[in-house]
Amino acid sequence: MARPIITRVRRLLIAMAVLLLPAAASAEDGFRLWLRYAPLAEAEAAAIRPALTAIMLPPEPGPVAAVAAAELERGLAGMVGRAPIRTTRLQAGTILMLREGDPRLREAGVDLRGLGDEGFVLRSASVGSVPVTVIGARTEQGLLYGSFGLLRHLGQGRAIDVLDLRSAPKVRLRVLNHWDNLDGHVERGYAGDSLWDWWLLPDWRDPRLTDYARANASIGINGTVLNNVNASAEILTPRYLEKVAAIADMLRPYGIKVYLSARFSAPIEIGGLQSADPVDPAVGRWWAQTANRIYARIPDFGGFLVKANSEGQPGPGDYGRSHAEGANMLARALAPHGGVVMWRAFVYSETDAADRAKQAYAEFQPLDGRFDDNVIVQVKNGAIDFQPREPFHPLFGAMPQTPLMLELQITKEYLGFATHIAYLGTLFEEVLDTDTGHPAGTVADVVAGSGQGDRLTGIAGVANIGDDRDWSGSTFNQANWYAFGRLAWDAALPADEIAREWAAQTFSPRAEAIAPVTDILMMSREAVVDYMTPLGLAHLMATDHHYGPGPWVGDLARPEWNPTYYHRADREGIGFDRSVTGSNAVSQYAPAVARRFGDPATTPDNLLLWFHHLPWDHRLSTGETLWAGLIARYDRGVARVAEMDRLWSRTRPFVDAERHAKTATFLDIQANEARWWRDASVAYFQSVSELPLPPGAAPPAHNLDHYKSLTFPHAPGRGD
Amino acid sequence: MARPIITRVRRLLIAMAVLLLPAAASAEDGFRLWLRYAPLAEAEAAAIRPALTAIMLPPEPGPVAAVAAAELERGLAGMVGRAPIRTTRLQAGTILMLREGDPRLREAGVDLRGLGDEGFVLRSASVGSVPVTVIGARTEQGLLYGSFGLLRHLGQGRAIDVLDLRSAPKVRLRVLNHWDNLDGHVERGYAGDSLWDWWLLPDWRDPRLTDYARANASIGINGTVLNNVNASAEILTPRYLEKVAAIADMLRPYGIKVYLSARFSAPIEIGGLQSADPVDPAVGRWWAQTANRIYARIPDFGGFLVKANSEGQPGPGDYGRSHAEGANMLARALAPHGGVVMWRAFVYSETDAADRAKQAYAEFQPLDGRFDDNVIVQVKNGAIDFQPREPFHPLFGAMPQTPLMLELQITKEYLGFATHIAYLGTLFEEVLDTDTGHPAGTVADVVAGSGQGDRLTGIAGVANIGDDRDWSGSTFNQANWYAFGRLAWDAALPADEIAREWAAQTFSPRAEAIAPVTDILMMSREAVVDYMTPLGLAHLMATDHHYGPGPWVGDLARPEWNPTYYHRADREGIGFDRSVTGSNAVSQYAPAVARRFGDPATTPDNLLLWFHHLPWDHRLSTGETLWAGLIARYDRGVARVAEMDRLWSRTRPFVDAERHAKTATFLDIQANEARWWRDASVAYFQSVSELPLPPGAAPPAHNLDHYKSLTFPHAPGRGD
Repeated sequence: MARPIITRVRRLLIAMAVLLLPAAASAEDGFRLWLRYAPLAEAEAAAIRPALTAIMLPPEPGPVAAVAAAELERGLAGMVGRAPIRTTRLQAGTILMLREGDPRLREAGVDLRGLGDEGFVLRSASVGSVPVTVIGARTEQGLLYGSFGLLRHLGQGRAIDVLDLRSAPKVRLRVLNHWDNLDGHVERGYAGDSLWDWWLLPDWRDPRLTDYARANASIGINGTVLNNVNASAEILTPRYLEKVAAIADMLRPYGIKVYLSARFSAPIEIGGLQSADPVDPAVGRWWAQTANRIYARIPDFGGFLVKANSEGQPGPGDYGRSHAEGANMLARALAPHGGVVMWRAFVYSETDAADRAKQAYAEFQPLDGRFDDNVIVQVKNGAIDFQPREPFHPLFGAMPQTPLMLELQITKEYLGFATHIAYLGTLFEEVLDTDTGHPAGTVADVVAGSGQGDRLTGIAGVANIGDDRDWSGSTFNQANWYAFGRLAWDAALPADEIAREWAAQTFSPRAEAIAPVTDILMMSREAVVDYMTPLGLAHLMATDHHYGPGPWVGDLARPEWNPTYYHRADREGIGFDRSVTGSNAVSQYAPAVARRFGDPATTPDNLLLWFHHLPWDHRLSTGETLWAGLIARYDRGVARVAEMDRLWSRTRPFVDAERHAKTATFLDIQANEARWWRDASVAYFQSVSELPLPPGAAPPAHNLDHYKSLTFPHAPGRGD
Repeated sequence: MARPIITRVRRLLIAMAVLLLPAAASAEDGFRLWLRYAPLAEAEAAAIRPALTAIMLPPEPGPVAAVAAAELERGLAGMVGRAPIRTTRLQAGTILMLREGDPRLREAGVDLRGLGDEGFVLRSASVGSVPVTVIGARTEQGLLYGSFGLLRHLGQGRAIDVLDLRSAPKVRLRVLNHWDNLDGHVERGYAGDSLWDWWLLPDWRDPRLTDYARANASIGINGTVLNNVNASAEILTPRYLEKVAAIADMLRPYGIKVYLSARFSAPIEIGGLQSADPVDPAVGRWWAQTANRIYARIPDFGGFLVKANSEGQPGPGDYGRSHAEGANMLARALAPHGGVVMWRAFVYSETDAADRAKQAYAEFQPLDGRFDDNVIVQVKNGAIDFQPREPFHPLFGAMPQTPLMLELQITKEYLGFATHIAYLGTLFEEVLDTDTGHPAGTVADVVAGSGQGDRLTGIAGVANIGDDRDWSGSTFNQANWYAFGRLAWDAALPADEIAREWAAQTFSPRAEAIAPVTDILMMSREAVVDYMTPLGLAHLMATDHHYGPGPWVGDLARPEWNPTYYHRADREGIGFDRSVTGSNAVSQYAPAVARRFGDPATTPDNLLLWFHHLPWDHRLSTGETLWAGLIARYDRGVARVAEMDRLWSRTRPFVDAERHAKTATFLDIQANEARWWRDASVAYFQSVSELPLPPGAAPPAHNLDHYKSLTFPHAPGRGD
């Protein structure tokens, strides 16, 4: 009796195995990011499967609810082995999507107040005596975020019988900045070329862009700037706007708005005008017409990001106008359509020889209150440029009348490109949690616009995404994309909790996998700081790339291009004096912070040389001399990479061979390069300090000339 | 009784379905090329499964036999649902690998004579009364090619009970030329960036390079030049040679040798010499030392490819030396190691204003017999530059004392980049089959070195491979890579047979799938000729890209950069007079050919305007006027694309949705652009001829100014 059935089943099994085989060959290549939806352990899957058998959409569902349901189907099929059916009749085990106004919300005990347009509630409830899991939200966008929230919850192997979870973003604009050129090159990109195939758009709409949208929506990102801040005006021509519109069409169902970097001189370059002066009415008209043209094609276009009068970019300063005059002119063009201007405060003048760290504050703080309502000033986390560690930017809290957007860098321009593991969750958390000393509170509070009504708020992250198969150049770099999104959604999330979430979804929800991965993530950024730029040092990379060490470089044309400008090491000591005796950059901070950073005794060790030039025998808070402490931190950085390698080897049973091997290889690279940074830096600083190495410190593997002789042409991600 | 089994099996099925689901999402993205090994129809699979249950390796197998066996396992698991086991005891259904000297060869009736080092025999035989399938070859490399040959046979849904197949290449060097720069850009590449990640090599060895090796080995390619002929000397520095060695290590088990493009001035640029003069002993020594250094690291290094004194590249001409002197100097450096020099005859002087088509012959023919034994002169299929159609290069047959290597272009620099379908099997076949009029016979005969003993022979193809997921920018472009390999292996293979092979393996062995795909392939290149450059026209593309039409362009600095130089159209007529009354380029051909091409009456219509300037009312062989025939061919090209689209829609039941949709989109692009080429060309030529359109011919959709106004910045694959 049983034989024919078994035979048929066996044949089916063979057929399925066959289908499986070739696909499996490339299945774990990192493409699926944290949305792998890998099968849960059977015990866990069995426990939740009965509660997740069906989906009931809200009445008259739109496209956003449709993709939310599709994602639940995909995720549950993966994790519990069975996709929920779509139902229109409530049954036990239904995932019930409820939008504002639905009477069943009250019955389910779901309160949508305070959730805003994007927040959601996940709640185990009873509706008409039927046990259900409610996803409640004011909008379909909230339902989508709630669906991803539920999948994230399940992906950590968690139960859902007593689910009661509320979540809402505190920041409105959660935006990726792609520094992608129209020729496909990504400035500071280490994961291949641009995702946007401008040549084939708008005809060919790469399905990968839908995966991009899914990934972003899953962590709450709701906007993306497609092109480099070093912008080409061509993006605003009709030919390119058609292509932009095609991308916008693909991202729209996921609640992601498209923005563009606008080149301030576009009216001249593509508009046929003689000037781009913001007070010239013809210029204003041109931008208004351009905005009209964009919105005719992309009704939900987000707005413009602008880098002006910085590093050679054109701007209002070319006409003697202020940043506010420039930004407001663009803002007026966008305002009728609801668009915003994100105006960058990263100004890096080509003529100002003062302390580079002071420029942004000096130019922008006096403009506080002079920007239109739909302008937000985008400020990097620190005053120089995405170094492994910088103190928070003095503009935060110092412009109470102006919305400030935090700009973080997800791509690791100065932190080892694609190969080094450097989890930026801790870096982002550090800056967000810092008390500005101003009434507004922490940087996160400033960014959330606390106490300022519902004015514009936002966080931007310079993307680390390219067309590499694994999106970000390495599996661990995916964690930085993830952490950016999660912290942009909720700055109060602890970096280690985010790390655990990511580890569970990316590798395995088993504790034996999560623990070492989280340990690696949590120690990684400090390791990079230690072996590259300890004790508040910064900007020590060699010329023509932002990769390897070059503390000896002092021959570049402009002073602030040189590492020697930043560390100022000589036989007597090291560090940049930004106290009152030096550049007095500390005066840009609130008084209490200025006092603390102004005195070496109260400046934390990890920022010491950012603010002070100190003798080599200065005592750190640990009691060791500055010289010994410097060497010790280099050594600690190297040792931490070895520890990361050891921890990674413990994950072998829980990680597929393909991703495990690649990460192990990258850790080997990191170990070698940590040693290179340490040795080159020690060799150089010793040549300057003329001090013996502390007892027990290993001499560099090569002499200084060797390190100076190394060249690395064709480094990826170059800016030119 | 049966229930528990079924339950268990059902659970297994669910588990497998789960594993399958996410992988399947990206399974048919073209990554697997023609090595998909998709399941055969069960009837066919059942018929052959019993005959392919085991593999028996030759005694003391090496790494090449090991990868052959692994490929058979992978392929059979896919196609018949069960991987063969490895056996050391002969059993029915064994695939028996037999190397030269094995006594079982005689018993199996396998004769290895005449197969050379790379040929193979596939034969259904009986050994010790056991029915087996023999793969016989002199070497393991032959066994690998035989294994791929068997899989190719099976992939076409063919039976194996009476298998008796012999195959051996007639050409020794079957080589891809990658025009890949060290910064990752691929000149004339339309499929993403370079596969070689120079930044991460040698540490990170991308598993994809093994798939690259598999694909090449499957079609008999045994060499690859890694870097652009417009070479950077840096590739010869120790840092890069380590990276090259890592690639060589990955390709070696597949019998693929690595070659490098050598920059002639490298002794100056990286060697510290003052000169690169080939008769300077110091220069010769430097190259010998460089070769020694390479072979110390890569013992089977193939040799150098050189573009010299062409388009601004340095060469022996810089020192008043001949190509032979330059090539032989390099050849002497490589000879002790068995390396070869592939010296390109594509010379495109910056000063010679004569007919560009005559330059290569004029420079090289007089050097016949003056090259060392390990030099082979690499000649493009035509005398200009990879146009949709050119007559064969006059050097073929004209240098009987010199090995000539045929250079084909697989990437579609002038044939629509990635999107247009243009199967080059027919183009390659056309040139290979052409009788040179010289004693050597056809171009294929010349390339095979017929009657010249075992001197160096070779075919090169400029690769269309990049890091795009589907390798070649489109599914149909994969057919050109495939056809190149198959024709390099055996120039006698008909292009349509190759098309059928490819279609079966890439889509489905069902006749209903093969027929339309083959029809599309076979008509596609002629369609492109028709809508771009009919009747022997050439080089009509607009400036700054080799994509769209620009027959009006006549303002570029050098005459032969201009389309007007090539078509010479005016009110009286059109065409480039290369007969005795013109540039007399025909005189470079053998007398009979020269006579045929020298007279419009005997020149085939499809090359007419290549050789002759003719009045608009000249009668074609079809009886129509030149003017009417020109327009008719443009229209035919457009119509053929519509027909291709129609044929493609018939394949829908047999092709996965993902590849079907992308191809359909690309066909839409091709249809639009065929019309664009046709309309722009017709508008322009009408403005010149001042003739009315023939009755029934549609006027161009826009006026000529419109077509002239179109610009396409950031076109992919640029050469600078």
